Amino acid sequence: MNVEIIVIGDELLIGQVTDTNSGWIARELNHIGWEVTEITTVRDRVREITDALDSSFSRVDVVLMTGGLGPTKDDITKQTLCAYFGGKLVFDEAVFANVEAIFRRRNLQMNASTHDQAYVPDVCTVIQNPVGTAPVMWFEREGKVLVSMPGVPVEMKTVMQETVIERLRKHFCDHSAILHRTCLVKDFTESRLSETLTGFEHDLPSCIKLAYLPTPGVIRLRLTARGDDEASLQPILDRAFAKLKSLLGHHLFCDVDATLAGALGRLLSKRGETLATAESCTGGNIAHEITRVAGSSAYFKGGIVAYSNAVKEHVLHVSPDTLERCGAVSRDTVLQMTAGVQRLLSVDCAIATSGIAGPGGGSVEKPVGTVWVAARYGDREQAECFLFEGDREQVIARATQSGLLMLIRLMTE
Amino acid sequence: MNVEIIVIGDELLIGQVTDTNSGWIARELNHIGWEVTEITTVRDRVREITDALDSSFSRVDVVLMTGGLGPTKDDITKQTLCAYFGGKLVFDEAVFANVEAIFRRRNLQMNASTHDQAYVPDVCTVIQNPVGTAPVMWFEREGKVLVSMPGVPVEMKTVMQETVIERLRKHFCDHSAILHRTCLVKDFTESRLSETLTGFEHDLPSCIKLAYLPTPGVIRLRLTARGDDEASLQPILDRAFAKLKSLLGHHLFCDVDATLAGALGRLLSKRGETLATAESCTGGNIAHEITRVAGSSAYFKGGIVAYSNAVKEHVLHVSPDTLERCGAVSRDTVLQMTAGVQRLLSVDCAIATSGIAGPGGGSVEKPVGTVWVAARYGDREQAECFLFEGDREQVIARATQSGLLMLIRLMTE
Repeated sequence: MNVEIIVIGDELLIGQVTDTNSGWIARELNHIGWEVTEITTVRDRVREITDALDSSFSRVDVVLMTGGLGPTKDDITKQTLCAYFGGKLVFDEAVFANVEAIFRRRNLQMNASTHDQAYVPDVCTVIQNPVGTAPVMWFEREGKVLVSMPGVPVEMKTVMQETVIERLRKHFCDHSAILHRTCLVKDFTESRLSETLTGFEHDLPSCIKLAYLPTPGVIRLRLTARGDDEASLQPILDRAFAKLKSLLGHHLFCDVDATLAGALGRLLSKRGETLATAESCTGGNIAHEITRVAGSSAYFKGGIVAYSNAVKEHVLHVSPDTLERCGAVSRDTVLQMTAGVQRLLSVDCAIATSGIAGPGGGSVEKPVGTVWVAARYGDREQAECFLFEGDREQVIARATQSGLLMLIRLMTE
Repeated sequence: MNVEIIVIGDELLIGQVTDTNSGWIARELNHIGWEVTEITTVRDRVREITDALDSSFSRVDVVLMTGGLGPTKDDITKQTLCAYFGGKLVFDEAVFANVEAIFRRRNLQMNASTHDQAYVPDVCTVIQNPVGTAPVMWFEREGKVLVSMPGVPVEMKTVMQETVIERLRKHFCDHSAILHRTCLVKDFTESRLSETLTGFEHDLPSCIKLAYLPTPGVIRLRLTARGDDEASLQPILDRAFAKLKSLLGHHLFCDVDATLAGALGRLLSKRGETLATAESCTGGNIAHEITRVAGSSAYFKGGIVAYSNAVKEHVLHVSPDTLERCGAVSRDTVLQMTAGVQRLLSVDCAIATSGIAGPGGGSVEKPVGTVWVAARYGDREQAECFLFEGDREQVIARATQSGLLMLIRLMTE
């Protein structure tokens, strides 16, 4: 079943808010074998919303809509949909009771515009929103379905999981299956990898597609199988994935979809080992990437952001002589940082960085983008000097990925 | 000038990658007074790409496209656009030289599919991509413009900033001058602020517009002046901004456009004071936010990511009795964390966090989203317990902003 998403809100089109709802919806629908085929983001304007609806309904039978349901004047989705489906707004006691209950729970005062939240189109089925005041509206026309949901992620996710997905499945009785297998591959350029896999791609059964999702240093490969039922697809996909694994050998270092930090976390968890960070130029971003992963407290003990030389010296015990002689951006410094944090926090593995993120601070010998990265695993260690292109943010991001990848290499060599 | 964005890539429609390019483009165009009116996200399919193009061109004169330009088989944008504009692919020496140079710089081997990157439609103007191998293609038809750019953010941003925006302005004879003044306002809801500024807004000269950009806890106000020449606009804008400052008093805590961390950095720089962080649940994200700001090494000495209790106890000297009696997520713990890091790193100010980012680890008394935040300025300190809604990422982000804002409040009270 193909689905389109329409995302509504001026704030998205001036870049103030990033839409993460669509991606989440796409992932959820994939689990039931449904596919999001297009996402349209429009402003809070009647004409743009109805045009997008017309377009979407010309291509698919299910449209999921998020946003534009707040109590303020600029949110016009409810009125627009009411007119589009030829209804009128009526006061709904159940919705009002829900709004009242939520205001009570949050210790807020009701006012005229909250009262308006309880008016809903008489041509839709209302789905109660247990975590917010904006009602969820289910419209049907000629067998097609539109579900309008709030843009607040926690509200949308709750109603999708608790009600909408189940109701959509029931309504359409569709059972086509889509399965994915994703892996992470290191030390390959996209083009060399594509060359290596030409034969593999050619021999793939027609129900399976291979996609490349490159990031600096690492390529994500995704096999997608599409067919009538999961049971017969699974072994075909498994065979293709096994073949891929054997072709890629040690280049394939993670056989599920994960961030680099997530892949590192899986390695550490499997081995029951612990990790710490000692960051200068990445300024805490490596620790942040690691701790974005749920459950990371099982293997990540903590880190030192040693931005000033004083912290490098007094907390991490980098020798003042090294700092004086080689400078903070040097092989000796980053190696002493990993060793220092490994001792200080009693961990098995450590990552360290020291570099010039820019825009200031560069010199002829050490231009902006110069970053020394070190990794330590037990008593094995490695350090490398990179020269990253791009602005401060990009240098930090690249140094972060390089640090994570360096430790993964050291652990899987 | 209205602009539409078409984002291409299967990975976006299965939710594997989140599109942050569109938001960035929207913000950049906003600065020159252009407006993104619609964003369409489509799969790597010829028909879907050309249909989206037809639709967009029926509404606007400028379409910016990102993605689908890699060297692999699933990326079909170049071939699709070539056919759409009625051209054929030809080998381009300059593009080839650029690809070669990038491969040399990165110490990589060329192969057949990298060679293919040098084939470009003979009906477009090629804009060299200085940081990647995929060429940027500028197409024109009946006065309308399509620019196809790589989906890799660093590549897209570089060509937009270095070439595309300027060329678009020139092409559409947009010589109008646009000036902005932005400030950050705390402790106001959007509706109370808009009430406070009703008279001010009413009295603004017609060449100046006021925009509200609210984020949790802080509202960004932007005055935009638009006219024929900068010299006459500047004093008008300066007068309006001065009036705004006098109206908002101490609520206005930063008179340039900055992140919260940037605003805090300006305060610290002005006073010649230093900062350190002690983070548990935010896992390094506060340090990361602080060090994203260029020049932050002048006031940020470093931080401790105290993810495990052992680090809180042994590095920050949080009392084991406190950890035992009150738990790691408590007022006493975060206050001892700020005091501990202030002593350890010899700084004037400190921020600390300890909480439950989820999805695991919650309890009845301390559910997921519970975060204690503390700030310390000299010997003054403050701590507050928050209950943030949302998933792990949102809890981390909200706790980060709350920590930064708490120290700003403490410094400006």
